[in-house]
Amino acid sequence: MATSKTATPRDRLLAAAADLFYREGVTATGVERLCSVAGVSKRSMYQLFETKDALVAEALATSGPVTHASFLPDDTETRPRDRILHVFRVLEDRAATPEFAGCPFVNTATDLRDHAHPATEVARDFKQRLTDWFAAEARAAGAADPDLLGRQLTVVFDGSAARNVVHGTSLQGLSVTTAAALLDAAGVV
Amino acid sequence: MATSKTATPRDRLLAAAADLFYREGVTATGVERLCSVAGVSKRSMYQLFETKDALVAEALATSGPVTHASFLPDDTETRPRDRILHVFRVLEDRAATPEFAGCPFVNTATDLRDHAHPATEVARDFKQRLTDWFAAEARAAGAADPDLLGRQLTVVFDGSAARNVVHGTSLQGLSVTTAAALLDAAGVV
Repeated sequence: MATSKTATPRDRLLAAAADLFYREGVTATGVERLCSVAGVSKRSMYQLFETKDALVAEALATSGPVTHASFLPDDTETRPRDRILHVFRVLEDRAATPEFAGCPFVNTATDLRDHAHPATEVARDFKQRLTDWFAAEARAAGAADPDLLGRQLTVVFDGSAARNVVHGTSLQGLSVTTAAALLDAAGVV
Repeated sequence: MATSKTATPRDRLLAAAADLFYREGVTATGVERLCSVAGVSKRSMYQLFETKDALVAEALATSGPVTHASFLPDDTETRPRDRILHVFRVLEDRAATPEFAGCPFVNTATDLRDHAHPATEVARDFKQRLTDWFAAEARAAGAADPDLLGRQLTVVFDGSAARNVVHGTSLQGLSVTTAAALLDAAGVV
């Protein structure tokens, strides 16, 4: 979390929140600690965000697009199959680092245990965005049921991330192998 | 959580812990609330369990075998493929109920964000137990790489549970369809 010293209190709070919520959990991170890390008073925090819940949702909405985009290939990869497997290769690389703590969207929904929480809605939108991206690539590749394949690939993504969270070890190719088996089954070569 | 009035304070604490940790989260459940629900004083709790962490681990170790067994088929199902798909049918049934809140083992590891926590070790053992069960069935069915298939099926299980946690909707056959595709790919008919 590199936040410029000239960043506004709002930006510092959002950056500290995204970092702490990911590393330590939404529920585990109290407002005191958050404000202390951000270098912002509690009074200022509550002037900027009505509630901690609102801050949780906005921090995820702000960090989410960068997280999402960081898994996607650039335009030099053109075959849909390669583009899809790229996502899992990035996941494998991340899961091999000590900083990896699972999917921030799934983790937030798990932490909150509340489907109606505004941050769970943000999490849902981002998981749907990944599923839609997979489905669009699957459609471009002529898959029989691209929407189903999109959901299946997200299941592999999240189940692989969960494996790392539980076992604390790298994936050793498991997510790529599993995604590839489903691509084969759907005729995406 | 139906605990007999004659249950010991220890049993009441373990039952309340398993229930609250699953429904609301390990971090979200404070010791005060836990003792209040269990009808046990904090003093008694700390006489029975050295720390909250020890209680978290023991509650999961105590409730885990029942959770694990509840997904498995009985002996009337004999084909390994049917026995494996039974697990996913149970998952689909559970995920269609409002009480379902994901896999308790994955959730505990996610809540704690600490691979060395004793409860994360318990969670790891139970996920490995499921993976080993899948692998044994896959081996009985003559799968080419039963250990890989076991890990893949656990990925599908956990990714499907995560989908429910995020979206709050039933799985509509997604976990069964995905597991079946991987069984097909591994030659388990």
